[in-house]
Amino acid sequence: MTTDIDTRQTVRVDLGARAYDIVIGPGALQETGERVVALASGARCAIVTDENVAPLHLGPLADALSAAGIASTPIVLPPGEATKGFDHLQQTVEALLEARLERGDLVVALGGGVIGDLAGFAAAVTRRGMDFVQVPTSLLAQVDSSVGGKTGINAPQGKNLVGAFHQPRLVIADTGVLDTLPAREFRAGYAEIAKYGLIGDAPFFAWLEENLDAIMDGGPARTDAIARSCRAKADIVARDEREAGERALLNLGHTFGHALEAITGYRSDILVHGEGVAIGMVLAHAFSARMNLASPDDARRVAAHLERAGLPTDLSAIRSHIADADTLMDFIAQDKKVSRGALTFILTRGIGEAFIARDVPPSEVRAFLKDTLES
Amino acid sequence: MTTDIDTRQTVRVDLGARAYDIVIGPGALQETGERVVALASGARCAIVTDENVAPLHLGPLADALSAAGIASTPIVLPPGEATKGFDHLQQTVEALLEARLERGDLVVALGGGVIGDLAGFAAAVTRRGMDFVQVPTSLLAQVDSSVGGKTGINAPQGKNLVGAFHQPRLVIADTGVLDTLPAREFRAGYAEIAKYGLIGDAPFFAWLEENLDAIMDGGPARTDAIARSCRAKADIVARDEREAGERALLNLGHTFGHALEAITGYRSDILVHGEGVAIGMVLAHAFSARMNLASPDDARRVAAHLERAGLPTDLSAIRSHIADADTLMDFIAQDKKVSRGALTFILTRGIGEAFIARDVPPSEVRAFLKDTLES
Repeated sequence: MTTDIDTRQTVRVDLGARAYDIVIGPGALQETGERVVALASGARCAIVTDENVAPLHLGPLADALSAAGIASTPIVLPPGEATKGFDHLQQTVEALLEARLERGDLVVALGGGVIGDLAGFAAAVTRRGMDFVQVPTSLLAQVDSSVGGKTGINAPQGKNLVGAFHQPRLVIADTGVLDTLPAREFRAGYAEIAKYGLIGDAPFFAWLEENLDAIMDGGPARTDAIARSCRAKADIVARDEREAGERALLNLGHTFGHALEAITGYRSDILVHGEGVAIGMVLAHAFSARMNLASPDDARRVAAHLERAGLPTDLSAIRSHIADADTLMDFIAQDKKVSRGALTFILTRGIGEAFIARDVPPSEVRAFLKDTLES
Repeated sequence: MTTDIDTRQTVRVDLGARAYDIVIGPGALQETGERVVALASGARCAIVTDENVAPLHLGPLADALSAAGIASTPIVLPPGEATKGFDHLQQTVEALLEARLERGDLVVALGGGVIGDLAGFAAAVTRRGMDFVQVPTSLLAQVDSSVGGKTGINAPQGKNLVGAFHQPRLVIADTGVLDTLPAREFRAGYAEIAKYGLIGDAPFFAWLEENLDAIMDGGPARTDAIARSCRAKADIVARDEREAGERALLNLGHTFGHALEAITGYRSDILVHGEGVAIGMVLAHAFSARMNLASPDDARRVAAHLERAGLPTDLSAIRSHIADADTLMDFIAQDKKVSRGALTFILTRGIGEAFIARDVPPSEVRAFLKDTLES
């Protein structure tokens, strides 16, 4: 396997003293060693990964580090969302300490969103803060969770309720590793790419509509789509690192989506995160249309595109899990984006024109959900 | 009980956007409600405390909050160092979530160093960062652990190896509550007061020598000693919040002290933290004298003062727990202040002239310990 340096794109996340690069392209993983040496000469590494990813990518990554003179210790965890809890956080932290890593050493997260979030959080709290590098291996992680420094684990009270803002020193998004993803997981990650167009970049959404097949097939269009997504997220994060305001736009589709994930018991055989976001984005557009904020044509256009990408766009497939609108409302109210009892939603005035709507009347949302469920 | 506002002293920790006050004096606890309202109007609170402190101070604190219109939920943990681990961190975080506290609400830590460190860390990671207030009830916590934002828990590999830098929004050091402390615990906290004189303020150390009896008796001298200690720590923290340099001076006596705590199994019936620090400070001065950095007279003066304060100042009381110098060296090398294999110690050129010595030859330390153990 040779690297194709001509196809490499770099996106800078401009956070002053905490600024870092996202390196995107096929074969980027093989450059991890030299890039880590450039960051932290003399550092040792621990590679945190899971049992699904390890057979595919742990060896090549450890070799790439070793070729640059960097010793690494593997920490291999079980795959799946259930890993993202206190038990495996403790296990990971203690493994980092047991490996005698010091403050100047590095934690490398090799995997999807679960591994990135967990390993990043473990790095944040071990010795009160170790540096870490993200090597995301899922599309979702490459365009979303590996960028921006949100790390954490789940609690019985909800997902991602425990964590830290802790920026990586470097993100290596090797687009070649996406070829090993199951098709359904790739499509789910695509929902987050479409999200960036819907939030604030109508031309990007139109470009996605034109280039969907090429992106699904791989090649330069896929790398472009990922780089443009990372650019969009990096810009928002640079302006609002700790989600005091604008960063909340990244939750477009997520309040509905999280509630749908919760109501289906977080069972990935029923609904994965990106699928919930896809349905959630369609619902956010439809609700915005109902509130006379946006044209119903936009909601239809969003649904049509996500459907063409192979994503669910309505509640039909999970209808049997939703007793009624009130039950769904309860799950929405439990979402952590509730502020002092008021409902905050990301709504839109049209494609590329999302905005933060505070004090959305719960009664309107309930009525919308009731009509949607009965239609 | 009336508050004596004339005896109140306030020390500002100057950390820009994260600046906060330490309010010191008898009866200060009763003002917590109004001060919290001034910080975060409309916030709710959880009070994290332990079973020893709760019967003494939980009621008065909850009443003070309630009088200012603030509802609070108590979270009462078992007392002792064993509480400072992953199990009780998880329990505390989940209790905060169960109480439905949101990001703008407050965690109040009511207790000694264990409670402050644990509750502060729980606040740091719950919802990726909640505000917290320290209400330290031990002398050690008032002059050291409640100030400066170091929070965390212990790991099997060592103390305080897991945590976060998370500054409180306010510290309320009610000197009146110290009257409820066991004498031994008060004396142990006094070691940290003496430390500030030894690090960088020879006149303060001389003042302590003159006023020791008055400080032990309580009253204005005690409040002065606490305020001057907080001032010393606040100044260092303001200049070096994350211990990139100067803040390491606060570890005077701690590398030896931690090793002594570890070698005696962290058994508080044998040695508590402040006692380890007292012995450690005497050793640091004696080692500095041996290295011809400081006069042996200073080491003798330090030992004499700490002995007058009722603190242990040599290894005699714990000699049976120390097999030999090599064993003690192993514990020293495990301390987290080891950087890339080299030994960093806080040494001194005399009283009030401590400095960070990097690359201290381990052979010199071993020889010093050997002679000390055999003398």
